[in-house]
Amino acid sequence: MSFDRLIEGILRTQNPTVAGLDPKLSYIPKSIQTACFAQYGKNLEGAAAALLEFNKGLIDALYDIVPAVKPQCAYYEMYGWQGVKALHDTIAYAKEKGMFVITDGKRNDIGTTMEAYATAHLGEVEVDGAWFTPFGGDALTVNGYLGSDGITPLLTICEKQEKGIFVLVKTSNMSSGELQNLNVNGGDTVYFTVAKHCETWGETTMGKYGYSGVGAVVGATYPEQLSELREVLPTTFFLVPGYGAQGGGADDVLPAFDPKGLGAVINSSRGIMCAWQKKGFAEQDYAKAAREEAIRMRDELVGKLGTIG
Amino acid sequence: MSFDRLIEGILRTQNPTVAGLDPKLSYIPKSIQTACFAQYGKNLEGAAAALLEFNKGLIDALYDIVPAVKPQCAYYEMYGWQGVKALHDTIAYAKEKGMFVITDGKRNDIGTTMEAYATAHLGEVEVDGAWFTPFGGDALTVNGYLGSDGITPLLTICEKQEKGIFVLVKTSNMSSGELQNLNVNGGDTVYFTVAKHCETWGETTMGKYGYSGVGAVVGATYPEQLSELREVLPTTFFLVPGYGAQGGGADDVLPAFDPKGLGAVINSSRGIMCAWQKKGFAEQDYAKAAREEAIRMRDELVGKLGTIG
Repeated sequence: MSFDRLIEGILRTQNPTVAGLDPKLSYIPKSIQTACFAQYGKNLEGAAAALLEFNKGLIDALYDIVPAVKPQCAYYEMYGWQGVKALHDTIAYAKEKGMFVITDGKRNDIGTTMEAYATAHLGEVEVDGAWFTPFGGDALTVNGYLGSDGITPLLTICEKQEKGIFVLVKTSNMSSGELQNLNVNGGDTVYFTVAKHCETWGETTMGKYGYSGVGAVVGATYPEQLSELREVLPTTFFLVPGYGAQGGGADDVLPAFDPKGLGAVINSSRGIMCAWQKKGFAEQDYAKAAREEAIRMRDELVGKLGTIG
Repeated sequence: MSFDRLIEGILRTQNPTVAGLDPKLSYIPKSIQTACFAQYGKNLEGAAAALLEFNKGLIDALYDIVPAVKPQCAYYEMYGWQGVKALHDTIAYAKEKGMFVITDGKRNDIGTTMEAYATAHLGEVEVDGAWFTPFGGDALTVNGYLGSDGITPLLTICEKQEKGIFVLVKTSNMSSGELQNLNVNGGDTVYFTVAKHCETWGETTMGKYGYSGVGAVVGATYPEQLSELREVLPTTFFLVPGYGAQGGGADDVLPAFDPKGLGAVINSSRGIMCAWQKKGFAEQDYAKAAREEAIRMRDELVGKLGTIG
């Protein structure tokens, strides 16, 4: 369990970006929707087919320059089990193209239930002696509100494989402080308390680049906290949402990186997915628009960071 | 948005129990597995068919005496999208039989992503002018670590319908105190802070029995906290896990109820599902065993509570 494969992808592409795959029908070109509805019907199956087709176009346009994708489970569940099948197929396609897949499910539970989530999203399940891969992601986002009981089942199941988790620490949204910024017993904040747990949970899963397999989600919208956390969590890799659409810029995310330009991967979802709509591209050029935006973002980040590694 | 339909189910059956549907293959009679593997193959599809068949047997045995079921998403996701289809079909079957369905997903995210989860599990989704029900639960468990941004999208989408949410407050596991019991700024604990938010979030969703549509998850394993929270959260309905297999008994859960015997629903998952294994029933009698255990549990609870309502 570690983030070595993610880090190697970042080094290879010289790009610390993850592309969020959060497809809603309104982001998807009409021509794709029309074709899928014609083939599968104007229903959940047709919608799910459109999601998958859209994602494949994005992956084809990105896989050589962006090391990772982050499908957000909610957008697939919204289209029923048919949508969840599209999540499965999206993960499989991205992995075929060599991308690192972070399944953004923010899952949380305890004991055997958390083991079931770990099996679902990172592991293999046994069916009467035969083994199957339910979803096959490389990493999973998780919520640590339930404490160690919610995290250790992931460590156990993942240590056998090259998998990782990202624990929510300081999220990018406006109201994240309501709970996360409260000061607890010793003076630390709630998010800082969770952050310190990440270092401890990660101890037995250290990879060869100095980062463990237990990462942390820290929002781009809170650069001071990014800076504070980078300093006290030397072995915790960061997943940083909130760049772009949520208001975080390149300068805001710089504190997430270590001096080598490693230690963080920056997510952009709508910025890349919806570039065709935001920049006035024709809909058939949605993948081209996504690639252009991904290159712009990479160049902006690397312009500040310099050579990574 | 409220828990009126759940409360009416409790009054009708005189039973404040919810049956957890957390099916693993190892809980399912071999004869069901064999028949499903013969029909669908020894694969995820066959496993998912066995889950559904098992659940249907349980629902048939329980629907007239137990008002609600709580399928735990993890156990379905563990068998891939095929398992998630079994979740959909389980929810549909339970609703057909008049049961209230609490989808236990502990979902959490912000803004449009949380809206997508709300749509997925409690609402309807539009596909080019036609509307579909992705999963169709009556209530969803959610994790409030992200603050109000993670909860208000649920309120908005649910107010139009008779739906509810249960927010994790004090969970039943051993390590729940690591974060939840820390004292914050004013001296309150983290769980107490979340609990007070529940009362506020629920204000606009009051039902006719004096409870809002925003409930709280409070574990049976912490009776003191149950008692404390019942007192300060007069309009918050409780979902209480941890009875039975996790060690909570009837006396432990009593503080969760108001003087009328309302205000809480007590979950039993393995206790009911696995009664046939625990009590040495023949496997073909698994549903009968589940019914016997559900009656035993009901009688134990109502023996302490008296007439409900």
